[in-house]
Amino acid sequence: MNRSQLIEVIKSKRSFLCIGLDTDPDKIPAHLLKYDDPVFEFNRQIIDATHDLAVAYKPNIAFYESLGLKGWESLQKTIRYLDPFKDTVFTIADAKRGDIGNTSERYARAFLGKSPDGLGFDSVTVAPYMGHDSVKPFLKFENKWTILLALTSNAGAFDFQNLQFKKGEMLFEEVLEKSKEWGTPKNLMYVIGATKAEKLSRVREIVPDSFLLVPGVGAQGGSLEEVSKYGMNNDCGLLVNSSRGIIYAGEGEDFVDKAREQALILQELMEVALKENEVI
Amino acid sequence: MNRSQLIEVIKSKRSFLCIGLDTDPDKIPAHLLKYDDPVFEFNRQIIDATHDLAVAYKPNIAFYESLGLKGWESLQKTIRYLDPFKDTVFTIADAKRGDIGNTSERYARAFLGKSPDGLGFDSVTVAPYMGHDSVKPFLKFENKWTILLALTSNAGAFDFQNLQFKKGEMLFEEVLEKSKEWGTPKNLMYVIGATKAEKLSRVREIVPDSFLLVPGVGAQGGSLEEVSKYGMNNDCGLLVNSSRGIIYAGEGEDFVDKAREQALILQELMEVALKENEVI
Repeated sequence: MNRSQLIEVIKSKRSFLCIGLDTDPDKIPAHLLKYDDPVFEFNRQIIDATHDLAVAYKPNIAFYESLGLKGWESLQKTIRYLDPFKDTVFTIADAKRGDIGNTSERYARAFLGKSPDGLGFDSVTVAPYMGHDSVKPFLKFENKWTILLALTSNAGAFDFQNLQFKKGEMLFEEVLEKSKEWGTPKNLMYVIGATKAEKLSRVREIVPDSFLLVPGVGAQGGSLEEVSKYGMNNDCGLLVNSSRGIIYAGEGEDFVDKAREQALILQELMEVALKENEVI
Repeated sequence: MNRSQLIEVIKSKRSFLCIGLDTDPDKIPAHLLKYDDPVFEFNRQIIDATHDLAVAYKPNIAFYESLGLKGWESLQKTIRYLDPFKDTVFTIADAKRGDIGNTSERYARAFLGKSPDGLGFDSVTVAPYMGHDSVKPFLKFENKWTILLALTSNAGAFDFQNLQFKKGEMLFEEVLEKSKEWGTPKNLMYVIGATKAEKLSRVREIVPDSFLLVPGVGAQGGSLEEVSKYGMNNDCGLLVNSSRGIIYAGEGEDFVDKAREQALILQELMEVALKENEVI
């Protein structure tokens, strides 16, 4: 999915919601355990119940990889199930890969490449620590996206990302600046975990046009308002993720209804924000 | 394998050679293509021909992941094949993972955890960008190792790792310093791509006792001398990797003989270095 298609999908669904498929076998409702592949069945039902409200789905690759071969199979089935929705659903492999050039090229092929070997995601998250030659192989795939870690939302973000270099910028600012030489707002997004006005405004100064993938906004919508106020641009420019708050909203047979309820709350708040910022 | 076992293996094999299993289906000798799983068969024959000379094997996970399900299967078979050698061979999953705590925990389980779901490697490479909570879950596995990226050998290492912070240290130095609060020389190693005297000496100032995994030393042995001179400590403290220089030394039916020849050249140079530094 290219940039203008993504913007169209956001406008038509009146939503910039990304649903994180952090599917944990221990949290799958009991009635699904009778299926051959409960992880895939859970994902399928979540997708069926929410794809008119969500613009993107983001499987967290670690959850699949930790299940070994059968996890990889569930992931493959999930991305194939999303294929018929490819004009209205953006897909993100949350893999946080990054290695020397010839190795990043393999990871790019694994997540962005075509079936049968490649999973064919629209995008993949990438770690910047190893610099330009570790990121560029991902950017070579046409109509695909690299989502670079810049400022993450965890406590450890303060260990390195927020340290200031001698020449004045913090590490996350340097990542944003330098990566603008590698890609464009048409193939490069950023993971920005900040919900604070100051940091988000600074991000927008450096990358005014880029899409930001913002993790961890709660269903209360409090931080969603902040993110929209300081992070939204004329094309929306945001994908806001919720994982557990949606997919584990219910525990029983009604888990899809509960998931839909939570997704709807977020979509409605997003619609308000899109109108306030005159995107729609 | 714990630290004292690793040191014993180095002393008894008179080697600190790690062989990188960056196995590429396009480079596998033609006569192996008749096997059900040529990637595993290639690895198996390389291991059989070199395990008295190498102290460690390091599958590069991207090479397996880019082959989809069958790649994951070849990886699983390779690590299981190494299981009977577990007292004399150290295993490294070169995966460069790293994510928020609950997700790093899954990756740790995938690579360090027990069969059937976990692959049961001795160690896994981890990227530090997301800070302490992204690294600590890997350190919780008993008698397992985290190998943290510090200073890599690629061109992109100059984008961020070598930039100087206001308070004086470069990013890679800060990673070394801070990570000493997270782990010990008994469960934490570092990827150090430097072969230059100045950088290696600086690394040894900060982490005198830790093992360093040094990638990309050529079969000529030139840089091996530098690495040994400035990087070796009383316990050796080095694992030096060679991938393509060994596994693709030959192209035909004699590929195992050629691989062994190259491994032997490096082992002999390493024996000299171990003696010069009075490790053996």
